[in-house]
Amino acid sequence: MAEAIETKYAQSQLRDINQALSEGRFVSVRKFLHEMPPSDVAHILESSPTKTRDDLWELLDSDFHGDVIEELSEDVRNGIIAKMIPANVVDALEDMDTDDLAETLSSLPDEVLQDILQSMDAQDRHRAEQAMSYGEETAGFIMNTDTITLRPDVSVDVVLRYLRLKGELPENTDTFYVVNRTDNLEGIVPVSRLLTADPEATVSDVMDEEPEAIPVNMPDDEVASMFERYNWLSAPVVDDKHRLVGRITIDDVVDIIREDAEHSMMSMAGLDDEEDTFAPVMQSTKRRSVWLGVNLLTALMAAAVSDLFEATLSQLAVLAILNTIVPSMGGVAGNQTLTLVIRGMALGHVNPSNSRWLIYKELAIGGLNGVIWAVLIASVIAVWKQDLTLGLIIAFAMLMNMIAAALSGATLPIIMKKLRIDPALAGSVILTTITDVVGIFAFLGTATLFLI
Amino acid sequence: MAEAIETKYAQSQLRDINQALSEGRFVSVRKFLHEMPPSDVAHILESSPTKTRDDLWELLDSDFHGDVIEELSEDVRNGIIAKMIPANVVDALEDMDTDDLAETLSSLPDEVLQDILQSMDAQDRHRAEQAMSYGEETAGFIMNTDTITLRPDVSVDVVLRYLRLKGELPENTDTFYVVNRTDNLEGIVPVSRLLTADPEATVSDVMDEEPEAIPVNMPDDEVASMFERYNWLSAPVVDDKHRLVGRITIDDVVDIIREDAEHSMMSMAGLDDEEDTFAPVMQSTKRRSVWLGVNLLTALMAAAVSDLFEATLSQLAVLAILNTIVPSMGGVAGNQTLTLVIRGMALGHVNPSNSRWLIYKELAIGGLNGVIWAVLIASVIAVWKQDLTLGLIIAFAMLMNMIAAALSGATLPIIMKKLRIDPALAGSVILTTITDVVGIFAFLGTATLFLI
Repeated sequence: MAEAIETKYAQSQLRDINQALSEGRFVSVRKFLHEMPPSDVAHILESSPTKTRDDLWELLDSDFHGDVIEELSEDVRNGIIAKMIPANVVDALEDMDTDDLAETLSSLPDEVLQDILQSMDAQDRHRAEQAMSYGEETAGFIMNTDTITLRPDVSVDVVLRYLRLKGELPENTDTFYVVNRTDNLEGIVPVSRLLTADPEATVSDVMDEEPEAIPVNMPDDEVASMFERYNWLSAPVVDDKHRLVGRITIDDVVDIIREDAEHSMMSMAGLDDEEDTFAPVMQSTKRRSVWLGVNLLTALMAAAVSDLFEATLSQLAVLAILNTIVPSMGGVAGNQTLTLVIRGMALGHVNPSNSRWLIYKELAIGGLNGVIWAVLIASVIAVWKQDLTLGLIIAFAMLMNMIAAALSGATLPIIMKKLRIDPALAGSVILTTITDVVGIFAFLGTATLFLI
Repeated sequence: MAEAIETKYAQSQLRDINQALSEGRFVSVRKFLHEMPPSDVAHILESSPTKTRDDLWELLDSDFHGDVIEELSEDVRNGIIAKMIPANVVDALEDMDTDDLAETLSSLPDEVLQDILQSMDAQDRHRAEQAMSYGEETAGFIMNTDTITLRPDVSVDVVLRYLRLKGELPENTDTFYVVNRTDNLEGIVPVSRLLTADPEATVSDVMDEEPEAIPVNMPDDEVASMFERYNWLSAPVVDDKHRLVGRITIDDVVDIIREDAEHSMMSMAGLDDEEDTFAPVMQSTKRRSVWLGVNLLTALMAAAVSDLFEATLSQLAVLAILNTIVPSMGGVAGNQTLTLVIRGMALGHVNPSNSRWLIYKELAIGGLNGVIWAVLIASVIAVWKQDLTLGLIIAFAMLMNMIAAALSGATLPIIMKKLRIDPALAGSVILTTITDVVGIFAFLGTATLFLI
């Protein structure tokens, strides 16, 4: 009978464990943890405050340490490893696949990594250094090396007998790779095809020729978009001489797809993608302060622009009251454009051949939005403050700022990408500075001309 | 020899096609389009302005329409289908898998859908209605029904002979499902295991018993997080009597993972997740205006708060100049907390058992941030405006607003989720309203008490 998964299952698990922990029933906690798959233990650790997390880790049998470490997100993993003694870390890493080993080690702070490498014996250290030899965020870094290769001239029957002798295949094997004597990739054979093929046929009869292969140094986000676009489950990885060096399976790619998609959202709020929801207070405060510091500078810059109009403001307090409306609308409209363009660039839809068209389109939307909201705000102010001239002035400022917002929202990410700055990280703060300055200048400047 | 994929390949393709199109070389365009996989054609359509998109669609052989439609994002697909005559749509949909058919049809506007259903013959209409019978965003909606089932008492050898007779297996078959006479799921057999199993053994000898199965009405985002957490490549789907009804493969789940991750980012900027980067100006303006309208209301509310202090502002213009700093810092700090909590909820890390801890933690960060930035802004203002009292007043307002920001950033998403409102959609605007109102009130209120 199939075991149907309950929707609230994970939550009730977490509640049970927390209760057992708070009541000091450590034997039950230990039992709970042992009965769970490693990915569930990792999820519970990620959902716990640091103190609870340390207690749970203490109670977890060290045989499971490696499997759980594999599943943790970077921030949480590094926090746990930093508190372990190096010899225990080495034990935990022993049975890891090469791709998980490379990922775990290379995200560690340098001094921790050195301690761990020194605690390893020569053979393990060699394996670790091998795994980290490909650049981080490349195909080589996320690939596995446990491929099964076949020779083209062998018969299907011989292959089947060989596989039966060999026993269980590596995890997630869905394809065999056909290579020649010098390891050049000549074709692929889906596992399911061997089941249906004529046993007399040779491997080269049943293989797909000229399979698409991933160069070992391709950036991992490009690997992810190839998988997504072509609905692959796995793909061979080749070096610059087209020799097979490994394979990438989709379960490794899924993490990259999620991280890439989250990256923009987290960066736009000035957060690190891997930021641990339950990090200690001091660590979080420190990380977030950079962004707040940048924002304080831009807020002071906007204040300095208002300062230029001190004489005007001291004569007409109503201007002070309305001074925030135009910058706020510009900020929201500009951020809409910015978000859309950043997403379009991440999906590979925006490129040199259509970016001009996109800028014109956003300018048209900005102009149209400008007219709509200018008319509306003019009417509101004319009624509220009984002053048509004031209404017209704020309407003019609104139109100007909407156009500035569209122009900067559409061009900033394109310019920043050319300068190799991440638009998600700094785009929003630069945009808001522009819309604040333009908005205040247009409103207070025009008011000074016409009302003073 | 493997065909290595060039990094800039897609971009140069797009440039070649655009050039051929603009020079009127329609035969070349047609040739380009025919030589590409459907997913690449879809990508090019998504990367083109509406006018170019229509031209390319005209040039595409109608035999490929169905394959390309499957790969398009919702907004772009609906735009194209709306311009086709129903009979051609019906032809294009004919060979689609049930999950793709369900997705394509159910995203269509109602009147278009009715036209298309009416153009279908009775058999096709039945199939279409069947595909849409499970609720959108459930496991049943994204599953495929082309499973291969085995009986437990049959020998491996018989299975192998049966498969050889049957020929090619359905796409992405990595598992066979073992069911009894009433279709209850009893076990699974990975395809690769049949290759290595003893031919004399029975299916029940080699199967994994009690496999995890997905209930047919499980929400699709939960399905996605199960796949992600357990690194599945496929999973069986069962009805409420544990009868096997289909299977879900990871390529369908990848799209959900990306959409879920993007959803928060797009919603927080007031955009639709499926928003087409190259949509017509009028359509985009209309969609975005809702959000701008909401923002205008909140900006007017903030102005109304300032309006309460008109007398104070008319006496001290310097207050008008500094009035934007505290709300701006509160907005940024609050959005950091909000983004982190929304992401934590999406990953399933935030739940009733730890949300109180999380709120305390964010309050502590807010207080600490408040002290840091209060001291800093007090020093800046004391130097810039040569006024220590003014510095202390703005420092007090900063501290108050940072605490308010942390409290609302952490509690809003939790409260909104209870009320079944999407926190990503409205959280940011409510938060900014709170930090604006608290910031202005604290600053101008304290200034009125001490300076007037």
